[in-house]
Amino acid sequence: MTERKASATIAVDAMGGDLGYKEVVAAVVKSLPSIDPKDKILLFGNEDLLKAELAIKGLAQSKQVSICPTTQVIEMTDKPTLSIRQKKDSSLVRAIEAVKAGEADVAMSCGNTGSLMACSTLRLRQMDGVDRPALATVFPTPENHFILLDAGANPNAVSRNLVHNAVMGSEYAKVALGLKNPRVALLTIGTEEGKGTDLINSTHAVLREVPESQMNYVGLIEGFHLFDNSADVVVCDGFTGNIVLKVCEGLFHCLKDFAKDEMTKNPIRKIGALLTMGAFKNMKHRINPERYGGAPLLGLNGNVIKAHGSSNSDAIASAIKIGFDMVHLDLKEETRLHIEAANQLMDSISEQ
Amino acid sequence: MTERKASATIAVDAMGGDLGYKEVVAAVVKSLPSIDPKDKILLFGNEDLLKAELAIKGLAQSKQVSICPTTQVIEMTDKPTLSIRQKKDSSLVRAIEAVKAGEADVAMSCGNTGSLMACSTLRLRQMDGVDRPALATVFPTPENHFILLDAGANPNAVSRNLVHNAVMGSEYAKVALGLKNPRVALLTIGTEEGKGTDLINSTHAVLREVPESQMNYVGLIEGFHLFDNSADVVVCDGFTGNIVLKVCEGLFHCLKDFAKDEMTKNPIRKIGALLTMGAFKNMKHRINPERYGGAPLLGLNGNVIKAHGSSNSDAIASAIKIGFDMVHLDLKEETRLHIEAANQLMDSISEQ
Repeated sequence: MTERKASATIAVDAMGGDLGYKEVVAAVVKSLPSIDPKDKILLFGNEDLLKAELAIKGLAQSKQVSICPTTQVIEMTDKPTLSIRQKKDSSLVRAIEAVKAGEADVAMSCGNTGSLMACSTLRLRQMDGVDRPALATVFPTPENHFILLDAGANPNAVSRNLVHNAVMGSEYAKVALGLKNPRVALLTIGTEEGKGTDLINSTHAVLREVPESQMNYVGLIEGFHLFDNSADVVVCDGFTGNIVLKVCEGLFHCLKDFAKDEMTKNPIRKIGALLTMGAFKNMKHRINPERYGGAPLLGLNGNVIKAHGSSNSDAIASAIKIGFDMVHLDLKEETRLHIEAANQLMDSISEQ
Repeated sequence: MTERKASATIAVDAMGGDLGYKEVVAAVVKSLPSIDPKDKILLFGNEDLLKAELAIKGLAQSKQVSICPTTQVIEMTDKPTLSIRQKKDSSLVRAIEAVKAGEADVAMSCGNTGSLMACSTLRLRQMDGVDRPALATVFPTPENHFILLDAGANPNAVSRNLVHNAVMGSEYAKVALGLKNPRVALLTIGTEEGKGTDLINSTHAVLREVPESQMNYVGLIEGFHLFDNSADVVVCDGFTGNIVLKVCEGLFHCLKDFAKDEMTKNPIRKIGALLTMGAFKNMKHRINPERYGGAPLLGLNGNVIKAHGSSNSDAIASAIKIGFDMVHLDLKEETRLHIEAANQLMDSISEQ
């Protein structure tokens, strides 16, 4: 993969996150040193608020950052399809529209997931050859990271969708994890318990036929091996993926709270807790599932990144950085080419 | 639920676990004080080995423990259906046959999961009104326990199977968790991301109609809330359940190893680790997903418990205890009655 696009513009929904527009502006400040001088950031949101905040941060005259005034905000509790119809001048909808109109190359929002997915899918439409988009999440582990997809965009997936998820995840891993030949695995259950599902078996039958030059498919993976560096991309349907994501978040928080509780139960443990505080900070920093804010919605005619609602400025800055990388490395075109090859393979298999 | 069966007999596969027959005999020793004096334990396995081990433990003359000699052992690597055909005199097959013949009320094995499920299903057959059995696992959390089912017996589940899982899980929770009115929830994904699956929606539509006197259905639950005491029984298909189980085990071990690594990185942390050791022992003791050895295969004409392959004597003793409780509290009959009511409800809904 080579750099192709010399400059890129990101449309940022500045109003959608739980922590508010100030956190988004703080993220922009953090992003600027690491992005290309030609890259531009468009901030969609309340003009007065954003203007004041940019002035405080010394960015009032920045040539890289500009404000696109909007008058509405989609709330986390708004209903997805209704909100995008009724709030056409919201920061979220307008950011997507900017990508649709070619004014931006990628959109990023910490806002309402359902609204972002509905608006992106309706306005940008699926990429040629892809039936359903997929949400890709980066999972941190002690040794590395892996990408899980689909994390919830398409809960009723068929085999063809899973093959596309594998292709899209493989290409995205090249951008987000910087890997040349990411190991792609298909999530399944222990062969000792059952024989997996028909969906898994038929998908595996296709993926094993994909040439190595197209994808490094390493086969089936069980849940137990997600965190032991067995794969870089874990493919599943949106129902399973969303449950895995949420269960991991739930278990992580439960263990964290439990450890805190146990470690403050008596004075001796409290001293021990102080001495080991660095260890826990490191763990939280390296493997908190919420840390990686950016989850792209792959398979559309345009790049869209959903950041976690509670993203802080670090997470938003990392999502902005990945957004620019997606454009510079032309993820969309690379994905389109590999999807085309995969569809040809599936056609030839079904003709046999 | 009232105690009905005055005495019970458990058929124990003494040869199947990773830790060998000595661990099983050690578990029997631990069980004896807590079981009814009329209850009996049949140990299936190598006569010489078991005789010698029972003699060492002072149980040679026990009226509660006896040996049923078998000549074969199903290995963990054996193929399920082949193994049960070729090894008819194995401890695993013979323990199930004892239940089939009415010589025992419940069978327990730490052996090959696939072989145990195949043999149980083939020989005992499904209970009247149940189409597919389900494997139920107890998950420990800091505050309580919950039962997840199906953990892998039926990966290709339809709505009717999930309704049965809810009924079977509810009845089992009364026995295993000692609850009078267990809260039953259906596992789904965030409504913000998608609309769940057709399978979930149709199952939810039935479960919400089940009268409160039959089941305490509390509605849909997301993965994030599994560990925060929102439900006592979490219902899902065998594919999702097995993945949740394995992912939790994987994440737990990954975090444990990571914490160990971080806490021994420098001398100060090592001192801290010593001072907080009790906290970690407590955590491991209370929430290690592997600790709870017994997972019953529900919905058959006979009680069968699968214990984890690596179960130690504590886990096996706990599985034996639950096995006796299942018989004394007549789980099979209670389940049959509730399944009958659920099937009548589904019939009446489909007639409307």
